[in-house]
Amino acid sequence: MSTITNYTVTGMTCGHCVASVTEEVREIPGVSDVQVTLESGTVTVTSEQPLEESQVRSAVEEAGYQLA
Amino acid sequence: MSTITNYTVTGMTCGHCVASVTEEVREIPGVSDVQVTLESGTVTVTSEQPLEESQVRSAVEEAGYQLA
Repeated sequence: MSTITNYTVTGMTCGHCVASVTEEVREIPGVSDVQVTLESGTVTVTSEQPLEESQVRSAVEEAGYQLA
Repeated sequence: MSTITNYTVTGMTCGHCVASVTEEVREIPGVSDVQVTLESGTVTVTSEQPLEESQVRSAVEEAGYQLA
């Protein structure tokens, strides 16, 4: 079974930002896929089990951005 | 002797963009320093001898941006 959750991230302005966020979120244990839509700031995370929002928040902040 | 020339680059939106442009322009033979101001798009290039604008244009385009 997998869980798909959408988050909104603020501050991304270009493809490099998307790559940074994708890379950090993908490193969270259990995450199998990360899709980012730059225009809306939507980050769609697929994981084996539900994630703690704090894990996602930390990963996004590590990349230099903020969860809305 | 060194030459300092300012160029204007369009399309840079964040620090990653600045890093990409800086990296490519720094690789031009004879370039000793590159300073980028994101807000204005100004790229200040210090070189041992005057550069061909075409060299700078190619480097900027390699990074994915345009000379104004």
